[in-house]
Amino acid sequence: MNLPGFLDVSTVSIIVAVIALVYAVGLIINVLMQDTGSQKMRDIAKSIQEGASAYLNRQSFTILVFAVLIFLLLAYVIPKGAHNNGLLLAVGFFVGALFSALAGYIGMSVSVRANVRTAQASSHSLKKGLMVAFRGGAVTGLSVVGLALLGVAGFYAIFTKLLGVPAGETPNLLIGFGFGASLVSLFARVGGGIFTKAADVGADLVGKIEKGIPEDDPRNPAVIADNVGDNVGDCAGMGADLFETYAVTLIAAMILAASALTDTLGTSGIEYPLALGSIAVLASIAGTWFVRLGKNKKNIMMALYRGMIVTGVLSAIGFYFVTDSMIGDINIFYAAVVGLVVTLFINVITEYYTSTAYKPVRKIAKSSETGAGTNIISGLAVGLESTFLPVILIVTAIIVAYFFGEASVAQSGIYGIAIAAVAMLSTTGLVIATDSYGPITDNAGGIAEMANLPEKVRKNTDALDAVGNTTKAVTKGYAIGSAALAALVLFQAYTEELTKATDKEFIFSLSDYRVIVGLFIGGLLPFIFASSLMESVGKAAHKIVVEVRRQFKDIKGIMTGKAKPEYGKCVDIVTKAALKEMIFPGILAVTTPILVGVFLGPIVLGGLLVGVIIVGFLMAISMSTGGGAWDNAKKYIEDGNYGGKGSDAHKAAVVGDTVGDPYKDTAGPALNALIKVINTISLIIAPLIAGLVIWS
Amino acid sequence: MNLPGFLDVSTVSIIVAVIALVYAVGLIINVLMQDTGSQKMRDIAKSIQEGASAYLNRQSFTILVFAVLIFLLLAYVIPKGAHNNGLLLAVGFFVGALFSALAGYIGMSVSVRANVRTAQASSHSLKKGLMVAFRGGAVTGLSVVGLALLGVAGFYAIFTKLLGVPAGETPNLLIGFGFGASLVSLFARVGGGIFTKAADVGADLVGKIEKGIPEDDPRNPAVIADNVGDNVGDCAGMGADLFETYAVTLIAAMILAASALTDTLGTSGIEYPLALGSIAVLASIAGTWFVRLGKNKKNIMMALYRGMIVTGVLSAIGFYFVTDSMIGDINIFYAAVVGLVVTLFINVITEYYTSTAYKPVRKIAKSSETGAGTNIISGLAVGLESTFLPVILIVTAIIVAYFFGEASVAQSGIYGIAIAAVAMLSTTGLVIATDSYGPITDNAGGIAEMANLPEKVRKNTDALDAVGNTTKAVTKGYAIGSAALAALVLFQAYTEELTKATDKEFIFSLSDYRVIVGLFIGGLLPFIFASSLMESVGKAAHKIVVEVRRQFKDIKGIMTGKAKPEYGKCVDIVTKAALKEMIFPGILAVTTPILVGVFLGPIVLGGLLVGVIIVGFLMAISMSTGGGAWDNAKKYIEDGNYGGKGSDAHKAAVVGDTVGDPYKDTAGPALNALIKVINTISLIIAPLIAGLVIWS
Repeated sequence: MNLPGFLDVSTVSIIVAVIALVYAVGLIINVLMQDTGSQKMRDIAKSIQEGASAYLNRQSFTILVFAVLIFLLLAYVIPKGAHNNGLLLAVGFFVGALFSALAGYIGMSVSVRANVRTAQASSHSLKKGLMVAFRGGAVTGLSVVGLALLGVAGFYAIFTKLLGVPAGETPNLLIGFGFGASLVSLFARVGGGIFTKAADVGADLVGKIEKGIPEDDPRNPAVIADNVGDNVGDCAGMGADLFETYAVTLIAAMILAASALTDTLGTSGIEYPLALGSIAVLASIAGTWFVRLGKNKKNIMMALYRGMIVTGVLSAIGFYFVTDSMIGDINIFYAAVVGLVVTLFINVITEYYTSTAYKPVRKIAKSSETGAGTNIISGLAVGLESTFLPVILIVTAIIVAYFFGEASVAQSGIYGIAIAAVAMLSTTGLVIATDSYGPITDNAGGIAEMANLPEKVRKNTDALDAVGNTTKAVTKGYAIGSAALAALVLFQAYTEELTKATDKEFIFSLSDYRVIVGLFIGGLLPFIFASSLMESVGKAAHKIVVEVRRQFKDIKGIMTGKAKPEYGKCVDIVTKAALKEMIFPGILAVTTPILVGVFLGPIVLGGLLVGVIIVGFLMAISMSTGGGAWDNAKKYIEDGNYGGKGSDAHKAAVVGDTVGDPYKDTAGPALNALIKVINTISLIIAPLIAGLVIWS
Repeated sequence: MNLPGFLDVSTVSIIVAVIALVYAVGLIINVLMQDTGSQKMRDIAKSIQEGASAYLNRQSFTILVFAVLIFLLLAYVIPKGAHNNGLLLAVGFFVGALFSALAGYIGMSVSVRANVRTAQASSHSLKKGLMVAFRGGAVTGLSVVGLALLGVAGFYAIFTKLLGVPAGETPNLLIGFGFGASLVSLFARVGGGIFTKAADVGADLVGKIEKGIPEDDPRNPAVIADNVGDNVGDCAGMGADLFETYAVTLIAAMILAASALTDTLGTSGIEYPLALGSIAVLASIAGTWFVRLGKNKKNIMMALYRGMIVTGVLSAIGFYFVTDSMIGDINIFYAAVVGLVVTLFINVITEYYTSTAYKPVRKIAKSSETGAGTNIISGLAVGLESTFLPVILIVTAIIVAYFFGEASVAQSGIYGIAIAAVAMLSTTGLVIATDSYGPITDNAGGIAEMANLPEKVRKNTDALDAVGNTTKAVTKGYAIGSAALAALVLFQAYTEELTKATDKEFIFSLSDYRVIVGLFIGGLLPFIFASSLMESVGKAAHKIVVEVRRQFKDIKGIMTGKAKPEYGKCVDIVTKAALKEMIFPGILAVTTPILVGVFLGPIVLGGLLVGVIIVGFLMAISMSTGGGAWDNAKKYIEDGNYGGKGSDAHKAAVVGDTVGDPYKDTAGPALNALIKVINTISLIIAPLIAGLVIWS
């Protein structure tokens, strides 16, 4: 790149990461300067802030207990030879967990402050509302990528420059950072997902169905808990998830380059992913400037698309030059473009399956006419079907990226896949911004409702929120699609790690019954994990139902508006339930690869990794998209179709939406975290179990 | 075995098969001699008979079109060298399809005659009712295993003795017979599954939910269609399915022995599976004698268990001696015992998940208190969770059977798995008998209701039917479990076939991106297939709803019982809908492996095979068991829990049951057929595509 000597790739990446963070601080200041509306609005916002902070603090404490335990294990159990140094791995792990949690905190803290300001801004115009909400979302986006890039590039720089670790051995140490991020993302997704949907479902079951009061009605005792849930689940949970996916994908590509491609690419192959990341971060910042309502003031989706397209195009241009200077092979550039194209198509595909404008959602809406039973059958069918195009897309991406990787100087198809995954995730900053603005507008609508703002305000926030539903679904597809690609790279790294530890080649053949056993167990995990999460939401929602019913009975005057419900009790109940319920899935995810690795050996564990990727991908897409389609089928009916609000079809659609909630916001997205945490753990224990040949 | 010279294994097997068929004829005569009750009962039974025959005839015709096409393709496109002779393959295919259809016809014809006789017998006593129904079921069971054993042993004898094909090359020709059976089972499962659930759901939606009339009420215009559905789906469809699983498992084991084990086992290894089958058929006949109500007249399940246990124990004893004389290695006997033990455990596990006596069903029932939404969430969670124990069971069986196979003279772990699968399926005759008695009692209950028989009769048939729900779920678990084992053997045969055709070793490594692509596509197939079937049931049920509503409106006096509904119209509508809807999934299943094999090559196809086995197994178990649990949760509430019949919890449970219907009786069981048809087709085209190396 003809950089001055002191400006190597990792230093530039660190500078870019700091720019992103500084820019985020600027956005925070901008958001905080906005008008917060009336005292009543501030009071409501404060309740949400307090609930969200209280939950996140307690969740962080729970994670901390796990993290300290794992820190000690890493530092003292990993023998010297493996990964060179257990202590470095442990430190990386801790910082990874810390940064991930920090990204979540920043995002959530801004989110719970942008909500009330968005509500106030929406009382002026849709345009102003979008502006405030999107800026709030952009803070999360830029914090996530800024911290992730800072962490990966920073550790890389520290290891190579301060500690003098050879560049080729550094990426293996970075996996500690990735694992820390994985662990936090797992718990954040699981805990946040259970919180948000238990509160949502519980509030709806009594409020909407039994009492017939609208969503976000201040008379509903669970209404604050519901709004808190949007922040801890959709904002903090999603942020931690993508932080991890972003970081681990970078690291996986670097490990691959370090372990298998130093002959062909040298150090450039290791640092190239950082360069791609840096460019896309700058492009994402530029992209945020283009998110503005155009002449057609209604077309919010187009405003967001404009930002994405600008980011994509700028990234592609930057990728071209950086590839030319670092690798000097157009094939690698093409592999990167594959990643950008996948992002584009995932948008289109997800919109098709979840937008009210197309057949799938309308099919579900129509089937609601004959009752809840047919609505559910139809929604399940759409969810199952919605895996089709994403699989074709990912499979095509694998084939094409592999081809370019193989044809390049790297002579490595899997490096092509790794670069496609890195490129795909490089625009994460902007993707999160468009997603994370969703919970902000959702909250803004809630505040508008609770503070009795004029109809018009709610209409504006509703318009913003409707788009948020689609962007949320898109982001989930994006996260899981990139996770699948990244996980394949991690699997490759796992096999390299085994070989390095034993000097033997490991072959994972489908004719080997141990691989089949592994595939079965790996395929089973998403089933058990998703089942446990669905169950948890059901249990926690049940507790909310009981409490809300109690308050309506015991506190006279809630329904007439004369008495205030005890919001805090509901927040407290979901908090406790979510923290309790996240333990089992967390332990399941962390211990299964270790137990399988130790007792059934490295070959079975390899099969397990691929099994969890394939089945996890299919189920995550099916649940996320299916849930989104159910939600929007309800909205389509509420728009006046098939009898509109209050009709029998609407009642059936509300049931579908209730089922879709844990599908799309708890189980589906958490599978992504499951896939990644299992892969990173396996990579860490690979050198320890490589020698265990339990059966021949 | 020290048999006289002319009595070799295949001859003995043919004799045993004929004994089974003759015994079935005896049972038919016995059933037909029973009292058919009043004229009204006979009339109702006649409507069901006519509807069932009409449907099965038209379904057979549709399949015939496909079959002729495939016959010609096999006979003229398969080049001489591959599989030796395309014409022999084609003839086998045709006979396989014919026998499978025949087994279905026999079973259904007896079933629609045993129903009315069971109703009449139940008016005397529970004991008599059980006797007639079980004998009716045993006809299907013995016809299925008799025809399957006759087909496999018969072709083997013809090839080796009349045509002089060397024993080692014969099994490869048998795959034609297996493929014919697969094709019929696919269409029978799909068409029958759509028919039965469209009629059931459609009848319930208007009858139970809109009009508030009970199940099987003669005023419901779809009531005959519903009863026809029990026969064409649960009886004929299930019979064809297990015919295929039984035959293909035998063939897969024989192919394996022929292609890889002639050095160690000689011809004995090829013929040994036939010997196991013969013994278990005799044991099954003996087992039927022990199905009798004991002192505790209520315990119907125990009566059925007694038959199964006797069959299992007799089979094990027989296996011991036949293994000793043919193989002379106790390890192979142990492998066979693994199969019998798996059958036992599948019973226990399935009962746990689907019986009203245990936690899973009660959890769903409890969650119905808070509405349909939580009922569905809970049911989905139970379905997902119910994969856990079956996976552990199958994985353990794989490991243990592999171990014994490896330790045996065969020195082949996969042969151990093959023998476990054969042993597991050898008792199919009795398993079908206990399953197929379900639709008979279901129908008997319907006839009792429609003919206004005394309360007591209905109570007896209900008692019989409740057990039928569990045995149906058990049979599905049994079929899919054995299919998974058999499919693994087929995959092995596929790789041997490729090697034989090219003289190169084919390795399906998880590090090969083509395998990953195949796994993704294979994993996708069950999702698309199940989605399409759920959708089809929804569509067809919708048509029934419209027609039933029309009849209630247009034909005055239906509700008062003064006018008779036009039952035939409903039967006709479901018939047309089922036949139309079975085309897409049928073509999907048949063409996908061919297209993938030809355009993406044999390695991708190998990955696809394993992908469809893993994901198909998980989804089939989840859907079959989840659906059964939903059904019984409703029954548990109807028994007076959580408010009993007519309560809000009951209404929620009815929604869950409606969703569970296509889950357990259409999509779930059809996945089994999907797995097998894809595996048999791939085995047939293996020699043709082995040379196609599309990508390196």
